[in-house]
Amino acid sequence: MIKGGKVVNADQTVNADVYCEDGKILAIGTELEVPAGTEVIDASGQYVMPGGIDPHTHMQLPFMGTVASEDFYTGTAAGLAGGTTTIIDFVIPDPQQPLMDAYQTWREWASRSVSDYSFHVAVTWWDESVYQDMGRLVNEEGVNSFKHFMAYKNAIMAEDETLVNSFNRCLELGAMPTVHAENGELVYHLQRKLLTMGITGPEAHPLSRPTEVEGEAANRAIRIAQSLGVPLYLVHVSCKEAVDEIARARHEGQRVYGEVLAGHLELDDSVYRHEDWNFAAAHVMSPPFRPQGHQQVLWKALQGGTLQTTATDHCCFCADQKAFGKDDFSKIPNGTAGVEDRMMVLWDAGVNSGRLSVNEFVKVTSTNAAQIFNIYPRKGCIAVGADADMVIWDPAKSHTISATTHHQNVDFNIFEGRTVTGAPSHTISQGNLVYKDGELRVQEGAGKYIKRPAFPSIYDAVKKYNDMMKPTAVKRG
Amino acid sequence: MIKGGKVVNADQTVNADVYCEDGKILAIGTELEVPAGTEVIDASGQYVMPGGIDPHTHMQLPFMGTVASEDFYTGTAAGLAGGTTTIIDFVIPDPQQPLMDAYQTWREWASRSVSDYSFHVAVTWWDESVYQDMGRLVNEEGVNSFKHFMAYKNAIMAEDETLVNSFNRCLELGAMPTVHAENGELVYHLQRKLLTMGITGPEAHPLSRPTEVEGEAANRAIRIAQSLGVPLYLVHVSCKEAVDEIARARHEGQRVYGEVLAGHLELDDSVYRHEDWNFAAAHVMSPPFRPQGHQQVLWKALQGGTLQTTATDHCCFCADQKAFGKDDFSKIPNGTAGVEDRMMVLWDAGVNSGRLSVNEFVKVTSTNAAQIFNIYPRKGCIAVGADADMVIWDPAKSHTISATTHHQNVDFNIFEGRTVTGAPSHTISQGNLVYKDGELRVQEGAGKYIKRPAFPSIYDAVKKYNDMMKPTAVKRG
Amino acid sequence: MIKGGKVVNADQTVNADVYCEDGKILAIGTELEVPAGTEVIDASGQYVMPGGIDPHTHMQLPFMGTVASEDFYTGTAAGLAGGTTTIIDFVIPDPQQPLMDAYQTWREWASRSVSDYSFHVAVTWWDESVYQDMGRLVNEEGVNSFKHFMAYKNAIMAEDETLVNSFNRCLELGAMPTVHAENGELVYHLQRKLLTMGITGPEAHPLSRPTEVEGEAANRAIRIAQSLGVPLYLVHVSCKEAVDEIARARHEGQRVYGEVLAGHLELDDSVYRHEDWNFAAAHVMSPPFRPQGHQQVLWKALQGGTLQTTATDHCCFCADQKAFGKDDFSKIPNGTAGVEDRMMVLWDAGVNSGRLSVNEFVKVTSTNAAQIFNIYPRKGCIAVGADADMVIWDPAKSHTISATTHHQNVDFNIFEGRTVTGAPSHTISQGNLVYKDGELRVQEGAGKYIKRPAFPSIYDAVKKYNDMMKPTAVKRG
Amino acid sequence: MIKGGKVVNADQTVNADVYCEDGKILAIGTELEVPAGTEVIDASGQYVMPGGIDPHTHMQLPFMGTVASEDFYTGTAAGLAGGTTTIIDFVIPDPQQPLMDAYQTWREWASRSVSDYSFHVAVTWWDESVYQDMGRLVNEEGVNSFKHFMAYKNAIMAEDETLVNSFNRCLELGAMPTVHAENGELVYHLQRKLLTMGITGPEAHPLSRPTEVEGEAANRAIRIAQSLGVPLYLVHVSCKEAVDEIARARHEGQRVYGEVLAGHLELDDSVYRHEDWNFAAAHVMSPPFRPQGHQQVLWKALQGGTLQTTATDHCCFCADQKAFGKDDFSKIPNGTAGVEDRMMVLWDAGVNSGRLSVNEFVKVTSTNAAQIFNIYPRKGCIAVGADADMVIWDPAKSHTISATTHHQNVDFNIFEGRTVTGAPSHTISQGNLVYKDGELRVQEGAGKYIKRPAFPSIYDAVKKYNDMMKPTAVKRG
Ligand SMILES: [Zn+2]
Ligand SMILES: [Zn+2]
Ligand SMILES: [Zn+2]
Ligand SMILES: [Zn+2]
Ligand SMILES: [Zn+2]
Ligand SMILES: [Zn+2]
Ligand SMILES: [Zn+2]
Ligand SMILES: [Zn+2]
Repeated sequence: MIKGGKVVNADQTVNADVYCEDGKILAIGTELEVPAGTEVIDASGQYVMPGGIDPHTHMQLPFMGTVASEDFYTGTAAGLAGGTTTIIDFVIPDPQQPLMDAYQTWREWASRSVSDYSFHVAVTWWDESVYQDMGRLVNEEGVNSFKHFMAYKNAIMAEDETLVNSFNRCLELGAMPTVHAENGELVYHLQRKLLTMGITGPEAHPLSRPTEVEGEAANRAIRIAQSLGVPLYLVHVSCKEAVDEIARARHEGQRVYGEVLAGHLELDDSVYRHEDWNFAAAHVMSPPFRPQGHQQVLWKALQGGTLQTTATDHCCFCADQKAFGKDDFSKIPNGTAGVEDRMMVLWDAGVNSGRLSVNEFVKVTSTNAAQIFNIYPRKGCIAVGADADMVIWDPAKSHTISATTHHQNVDFNIFEGRTVTGAPSHTISQGNLVYKDGELRVQEGAGKYIKRPAFPSIYDAVKKYNDMMKPTAVKRG
Repeated sequence: MIKGGKVVNADQTVNADVYCEDGKILAIGTELEVPAGTEVIDASGQYVMPGGIDPHTHMQLPFMGTVASEDFYTGTAAGLAGGTTTIIDFVIPDPQQPLMDAYQTWREWASRSVSDYSFHVAVTWWDESVYQDMGRLVNEEGVNSFKHFMAYKNAIMAEDETLVNSFNRCLELGAMPTVHAENGELVYHLQRKLLTMGITGPEAHPLSRPTEVEGEAANRAIRIAQSLGVPLYLVHVSCKEAVDEIARARHEGQRVYGEVLAGHLELDDSVYRHEDWNFAAAHVMSPPFRPQGHQQVLWKALQGGTLQTTATDHCCFCADQKAFGKDDFSKIPNGTAGVEDRMMVLWDAGVNSGRLSVNEFVKVTSTNAAQIFNIYPRKGCIAVGADADMVIWDPAKSHTISATTHHQNVDFNIFEGRTVTGAPSHTISQGNLVYKDGELRVQEGAGKYIKRPAFPSIYDAVKKYNDMMKPTAVKRG
Repeated sequence: MIKGGKVVNADQTVNADVYCEDGKILAIGTELEVPAGTEVIDASGQYVMPGGIDPHTHMQLPFMGTVASEDFYTGTAAGLAGGTTTIIDFVIPDPQQPLMDAYQTWREWASRSVSDYSFHVAVTWWDESVYQDMGRLVNEEGVNSFKHFMAYKNAIMAEDETLVNSFNRCLELGAMPTVHAENGELVYHLQRKLLTMGITGPEAHPLSRPTEVEGEAANRAIRIAQSLGVPLYLVHVSCKEAVDEIARARHEGQRVYGEVLAGHLELDDSVYRHEDWNFAAAHVMSPPFRPQGHQQVLWKALQGGTLQTTATDHCCFCADQKAFGKDDFSKIPNGTAGVEDRMMVLWDAGVNSGRLSVNEFVKVTSTNAAQIFNIYPRKGCIAVGADADMVIWDPAKSHTISATTHHQNVDFNIFEGRTVTGAPSHTISQGNLVYKDGELRVQEGAGKYIKRPAFPSIYDAVKKYNDMMKPTAVKRG
Repeated sequence: MIKGGKVVNADQTVNADVYCEDGKILAIGTELEVPAGTEVIDASGQYVMPGGIDPHTHMQLPFMGTVASEDFYTGTAAGLAGGTTTIIDFVIPDPQQPLMDAYQTWREWASRSVSDYSFHVAVTWWDESVYQDMGRLVNEEGVNSFKHFMAYKNAIMAEDETLVNSFNRCLELGAMPTVHAENGELVYHLQRKLLTMGITGPEAHPLSRPTEVEGEAANRAIRIAQSLGVPLYLVHVSCKEAVDEIARARHEGQRVYGEVLAGHLELDDSVYRHEDWNFAAAHVMSPPFRPQGHQQVLWKALQGGTLQTTATDHCCFCADQKAFGKDDFSKIPNGTAGVEDRMMVLWDAGVNSGRLSVNEFVKVTSTNAAQIFNIYPRKGCIAVGADADMVIWDPAKSHTISATTHHQNVDFNIFEGRTVTGAPSHTISQGNLVYKDGELRVQEGAGKYIKRPAFPSIYDAVKKYNDMMKPTAVKRG
């Protein structure tokens, strides 16, 4: 029982108590009676919000010759410490690897999670078996979204042919295609060119992936989706060029969604020219942090509804791992952390500045992700019958972010030293109090795999719209 | 008690029964027990949706030398027949008339309403008393939105000075400024020019108000709002030029909202060149219906979220009134009907085509208006505690719109002869069944005036944002 | 000697006589004395303009299993009859065919030309030999532009890798990359899908190449060019989507140029649903004619400077050739005529309507092409020392376009029956009067191959700009 | 005779000698013979370019209670020292003052000029006499452009009614309307608000005129021009908001032109927060220098052709004059210098960086202004018959800009201390060498008033276009 807080949903705020039982919310109301033996949390002066959903993490990802240092146990625990109660991670098959095999591997790894989790599955190659496995994943395993990397040439990059086939398959299955939008051919060319010029340090990383490279891929994915009549979700939108493409598409009625990372909102590309190689390398992720000016564009896009979700692309590599690219920036493992920090940074930079109302904060940290990936209203709102995943947010609490104190299993924090106002006092997962004022009370394996049904409600409209636009033949004598 | 329907809200659809008492919704759930003596409506195969809100009507408006033929009694009844359970009408003071006087007059007229209603108040002139009356209206009368006409030179047009003063006052009061966006100076000039050229018929009406005239005013209002840090709502957005301005502003994070009329979505300006003067004149309203192409732009803007609400600008003049402008198109009373037709036309053109999902239909016909004008969740959703204003929608019902059968008190219908699929089977207002399969069961004066509180939740964010942007002085020695 | 006309250049119009000798313009002035024995043409009341340059033709092209019916002799003659005195045609090697081989073949074919001509060379594949041949073509053969087909999968389509390599090579060589912008993967997918649906007629042609397919490719080519710092020219821009991309790029300072065809400006896609298969098939070209609305966008882009040149993509196939695709629209040879009609249609639709001034007409039919492809001021203006290629234009002359009377060697005309006002009275090529009032006086082989030097003047700026943007390494201890 | 230089025009560069006589260019060619007694200038290694045209200066302007310190004598001399051989200044009548009176006053003042000059005339009020005087000015005095201030409320601001009337009159007369685009009502409101807040220093100047204030007015002027079918020229475009409006309008085919000042291209608004009041106040001009980011937008717009001309708004006030606003920023006389510096700054920042080619430099400093204001080819090009106004430009010459060395009659230079590469070695006005390596050889009163004819060539197209769009009546029985 949470008493005395302001219960915040995407559409409204009310003063109410919340009562949970068996992992579900059972009652919301004023002056609720407390059954005997119920733990009572005093939320006066605080906000009671749906637990955060981070729709983009990579726990223990094998990548670029190493494995991300954060596993599903430590990673979901760190999430809870930051108010995030659900993650959607990625199954990433090697080219030629059967999708179902990779899926089973990731399910196994994730069984240690302490909060709920789910999976997008990447389509990194194409043949008839991929087509079939996509069907099995959707119909039997509760996967309703597939990821496509438009970068990483000679590795997991999907060519246009794969994009077209897979997007089309998504449409049949009622699933959402998602893309990492960077033109891999250009990145490859620019990497070779920079190395040839002798620019081998982390400063070459952003130079090899300029914003137009993302703008191109964003446009291409959107146009392919438009041609096929399928919705689309772009992960980690990081620059004006990509934002503009999404805005245009939405303005023309296309069902396109965009995600933004806390890091891209708050950091710029000056970090890559830092004199300390380790510091610079620790920021290497793709897309890179962007030149000044792009951050404001991203914020405005989040405010205006062009972007709907916030995530972290949480993917941790420690200094010794980053060092693999000491002599060649293109070998620095790509990734930064944040699953614990996201909501605090968003609140501090978003709500305290008036860019977002508290309801909008809930939307972009939880509700929109739940709706787009079709686990709403089970997740993403505080309502009778919903999962009891909540965060109690103390808007007055001051917290200084640091790698020395965070719960993330990595030796660096891109927000190091930032003092935010507003932080979780309690986190509740599955009805249990799992975090209280700095202390985690998690249980390995307590997290459940969340099946996400296909055909979210917009698919009714998508299908009707495609029918209306269906081509017809001309009858000739 | 409504049993067996699909309950549709903006965020989700569930199969559930709905039970009302004392004008409020008391319970929502499956297999609800029916208290003895309760009227039960079978909604199987149908959608149970929040009653429509038409945020733009003009019942019995004195305008251009005559009075709109539809009064609050007949007009709200017609609304109920079409599933609309709340209207927001306009108090329009003459220049120099005290706002409070005009407000009282309209309240008196509206007391005959059969459904709930509320009022925007127009600011048509400026002095200290207007400033004071705006405060009284907000703080004592529950008015939280003020209208500004940028057209109608030499009558109710607000100059930039008035716009600036009134928008600024709205910001102080936590109210929403709204605008009719057309450059009145240009309209006046073009009217004189056309009359001089001898073009006196209704075909001159759209020629005197081309789309750039609306685009200009939309931009001006948006820029003024931006300078002052105040939200803004544009009524009856009718063309690409204005849509583009709103999209740009929203894309840049500005809190700007747009309304579109059913007529502008579905009709084009060819009606004004009809050989029958009466037919052409019956379509005279401002802004006029637009050249082909603009309709698609409006639809896409509604789909993509650039526009949020749908309305009618319901303002009825019969053929004998329209005839006042027989020799001079600029004297044809401006206005068309639609309060009864809006939801059916929107469903038929929007949901059946796949442009809108049913949840999005609820958003644009009810929820968004309730949120923007701060009567949510009392109106605009089906939730425990909300007003029992609902429409039961039969998606299979066929209905042919016609002036000979509609309940609107006017001799013309701009959708004449259109057969739609999808229509209300029942309408419930304040918990009472007021419309059933073609039959109205209304009671004069049953409608209540709805006070709308100031400072909707976004104002917290607006205030913080303005504080963050506050100018500061440079200290010099 | 041309006496008494108004001499029109891109920058001004003057009343002057023009005197030519040895194929060059020797003098321009008022009251020039006529040397004895000089032929004098009376141009009073007429415009004397630089001969048209059609930068996009395909004479006797081997394509889709047949050969275009118009050869260099008939094609250049038809051009002269329409006031066009220079064409730039395309050398299109088969994949794996050495560029130099193909180039020699085309030079041989073109030797019969009756007017001056030049060649773009297509890069349809990539290896080191292509890299080398590009250098030879530029340095020895006067080729300064290379074409890339982004469509025609499994045939001449260039993948991103080829685009990147070839664009980069163009930058080294001071040459202009050009693209046919359509996403070949999507076209292929949509063709298969339509055939599977049983839609096999010409109406499937535009359905398989919707405007977003061109918008995508236009954006991709522009972004690649931006990343590499190379200028870009887009041939046959046909739709709003592509125009918008060019406008955006130019607005951001990128050196991007666009060409538009007379056909795309004036026709729409209703032709493909014509009940006569032959009529519909005769219009099959790529990109296809577009839905209503796009034509106006193209005109406005030409007026506003977003597009710079006009061309025809002149590529003729007669009815028996078009019949190859009787049962499968994707086998209908793509191409339509127009080299003779272009200037008349442009004048009639452009100058008579006030969309273009006569100076702007000269710009878009001649001067801009000459500047972009670096044959200015030899071609593209009337100036002392320039080639004596001119057209004397009678603005009052009425002419009805028809396949029964045109000089083009094809049995169809997409402008059939259109009566234009404004047409050539005389055409002068290399100082000779080659066309007079309907009568051609051409000589086989009189046309000269025009070498076009590399490094047009903008390349100085391009080089400096790229230097300014050059990446630099961070020095670390 | 100028020997051995590279002669640069907007369309091409050639190695040639130039021979002048009687103030005109008599011959251009290689190896021209030098008539006996001719002064020969050696231009080897240098560019010979058309003299600069500064289309926006205010010599000895009475403004804000004082008079600009630079008069026509000193100002035109300073221009020559910087390579500018023609200025277009402004006649600015007081409200109610007859236009002809003001015009005569300015003509008198300007008679001391040492280079050629011309005048725009401002329309600051409206009645029938203004209408008549505009006709006289055009038909008898060679004025073909009229200025409108949309700012300066309670002084010279033109309301919409005046804009509409005057733009329409311009169309009749074949003249170009020009606007200073800032919403004067908003500026006034923000000035009052800032003063009320106690922010009285120069830092309040940009805060009272944010970019949206210019964006609004730019859009309004463009929309009014569009409605009336008249071309439009915007002076001193300073921000993204205004650039975007112009780009949009041009993209849609509207004939809209934009001017940018050297200062707006190179400075940002940080100057207003300088701790030295005098330094900050010296930068007060309207529109103000803009936040970082806008400069790049302006450059790109100039590169891409959205903006066509460069100017200075040269309007000098010394420190003692600026001090009038010591306690109230709104009383600081608005204006900065630059007529001498413009071309050097443009070359250094534009040509040396590769943003502009040398031909484009000529376009934006001279040719475009000459064409738009219809004194081409008399001015704006190096051609036989043109006025012998030229600058010989040494691209290797280094020059440090400073108030201590400049020829401008003012005690401050906004480019103080900037060392540019590229500067005039000689300036020729009316065929006379008036400036050589730092030394002026000017003669008071040598400058001639330049009449500018109405109806530049684009007006033919404008008229035809308006005819095509002319409204027509519907005939009804
Ligand atoms: Zn990624
Ligand atoms: Zn990722
Ligand atoms: Zn209105
Ligand atoms: Zn209204
Ligand atoms: Zn092509
Ligand atoms: Zn072609
Ligand atoms: Zn000004
Ligand atoms: Zn000025």
